[in-house]
Amino acid sequence: VEALIEGVRLGRRRDIARLITKVENRDPGSDTALRRLYPHTGKAHVVGVTGPPGSGKSTLVNAMALELRRRQMQIGIVAVDPSSPFTGGAFLGDRIRMRDLAGDQGIFIRSMASRGTLGGLARTTSDVVKVLDAAGFDMVLVETVGAGQAEVDIAATAHTTLVIEAPGMGDEVQTIKAGILEIADVLVVNKADRPGSDRTVKALRAMLRMGRDTAAVDHHGIQMDVNEAVNKSRALDAWEVPVLATVAPSGEGVELLVETVLKHGSYLRGGELWMQKERARSRQEIGRMLQERFMARLLEAVPPDQRETVVDDVARRRKDPYTAVEELFGRVQS
Amino acid sequence: VEALIEGVRLGRRRDIARLITKVENRDPGSDTALRRLYPHTGKAHVVGVTGPPGSGKSTLVNAMALELRRRQMQIGIVAVDPSSPFTGGAFLGDRIRMRDLAGDQGIFIRSMASRGTLGGLARTTSDVVKVLDAAGFDMVLVETVGAGQAEVDIAATAHTTLVIEAPGMGDEVQTIKAGILEIADVLVVNKADRPGSDRTVKALRAMLRMGRDTAAVDHHGIQMDVNEAVNKSRALDAWEVPVLATVAPSGEGVELLVETVLKHGSYLRGGELWMQKERARSRQEIGRMLQERFMARLLEAVPPDQRETVVDDVARRRKDPYTAVEELFGRVQS
Repeated sequence: VEALIEGVRLGRRRDIARLITKVENRDPGSDTALRRLYPHTGKAHVVGVTGPPGSGKSTLVNAMALELRRRQMQIGIVAVDPSSPFTGGAFLGDRIRMRDLAGDQGIFIRSMASRGTLGGLARTTSDVVKVLDAAGFDMVLVETVGAGQAEVDIAATAHTTLVIEAPGMGDEVQTIKAGILEIADVLVVNKADRPGSDRTVKALRAMLRMGRDTAAVDHHGIQMDVNEAVNKSRALDAWEVPVLATVAPSGEGVELLVETVLKHGSYLRGGELWMQKERARSRQEIGRMLQERFMARLLEAVPPDQRETVVDDVARRRKDPYTAVEELFGRVQS
Repeated sequence: VEALIEGVRLGRRRDIARLITKVENRDPGSDTALRRLYPHTGKAHVVGVTGPPGSGKSTLVNAMALELRRRQMQIGIVAVDPSSPFTGGAFLGDRIRMRDLAGDQGIFIRSMASRGTLGGLARTTSDVVKVLDAAGFDMVLVETVGAGQAEVDIAATAHTTLVIEAPGMGDEVQTIKAGILEIADVLVVNKADRPGSDRTVKALRAMLRMGRDTAAVDHHGIQMDVNEAVNKSRALDAWEVPVLATVAPSGEGVELLVETVLKHGSYLRGGELWMQKERARSRQEIGRMLQERFMARLLEAVPPDQRETVVDDVARRRKDPYTAVEELFGRVQS
């Protein structure tokens, strides 16, 4: 583990890859490594990129990485695709072939397929970002499909969140996505060479004008008052969310996008906002880990057959769920 | 409380409304009432109705309620609209005016706006359903906006889940909604008099043929292995998900829809599936309540300023989150 930690800190690609695999497999040694590496994290600018399938996210992330490399930045990419456990490998291969980024020591790409629950995926992603952060990457791009709440949560732990749309999505769809728009620091209409892209840009700008405040529903559930913190940080946040148009394959608009992302990073670092984001990230992570810990403790304290008996009793109305919860909670406490 | 419980059991509308208000306000007396009423629940057929804004869900739910009333069934409607805290009242008013269901003793309608977190809303909804169940309603229709995971979770606690779509939603949108389709027992293309409805019906049928199994990602996070249970029950479930077309205002297709819903209820009750659904519902509810209980206990055990200190230490890298979680968890235990 010592050698591994040392290797990661020196930015050795093989050690980074090895530790990430350990983290993904929840190898016991990875805990120690993560603890030891944690003090060396906090430097990387974490950028979440989310959007629906078909919005061209991956191609755009590649184009951004190329532009960032031109600026001599060290870039990590974490692609989270929980819906397609089997495409992970091929996807990664395509990415490398497509953009010829392979062999570039300044870039590290990792595709993560589904392992167990999305809750687990959120944790693993967060830990992989820490490894890349500690390894000295200047920016880590976290790409998620953006279909469900958990993916949104993953993106929301970023310093800067990009929401990618494709042209031609109707008003209804935009209403559905109010929750996703709410987390955006930068909105991107990709595939801007397609018909309807102007209309989509205008529609998104109109939505932003209507104000994110009106859409400020709690989308996060119980998470150690993380939402309160997010809202508080939003209130202080004078950043005007821009709507940019890009055509990823040709690179059109990508330079401006990258500049905007870097500008957002500087904006955050220029005041209290960066530390506020860090606090919000820590709060969310601690809340999630506490719940995981609690559920693990419960599963340990109450054997499966006893859990099933309780569930069955409640299902058959022999016991009410309030009493059941009190009993189970008592078992964890003792 | 005694008189209230008695009144609810006798189906007295005023007592039902009063208890629901108490449940919504988390009035201490409501706990006792819910505990006492629980043994009398489990008879109602709970039907979740979800779908995007603009799919005409509310009108369809009204049309279904009218058809069910023709069949002499007692119907409860719970409309959950977390995204619009202010439309709740107006919405309810519209509903009553529009369909002239007011004064019908065989129907009880309740609109629930956002109160606190969506997690809290899921719990309140589940408790309101119990009140209506104990009051003797044969069927409870739970209408949710279906925009996020929490709403999907609410619908997923139903015995029968209807997913409503409107025509003209592109392929991309359907991909986004794989998680929502996965929970459907009946798919409805409403507004079927609009252009493109045939295409939408066909697209949905094609998606269903591709198999819900391939989309079987864990969309629920850590919830006391509820997903395992859901998947298990799915495996045993030989129900072929139908795709129906309706035009809610004219009532076209509504009779067939209601018959299909009732058929699904009989199908469940005919075998082990009903009790399996009950177990899945109980498992999910117990899991959610345990997490709530744990977080409440944590907030109680660790004062706000101490929580903030821990969060700040983690954000500033003075402490790693793994150590922080262990310390906080120890505080709850002791």
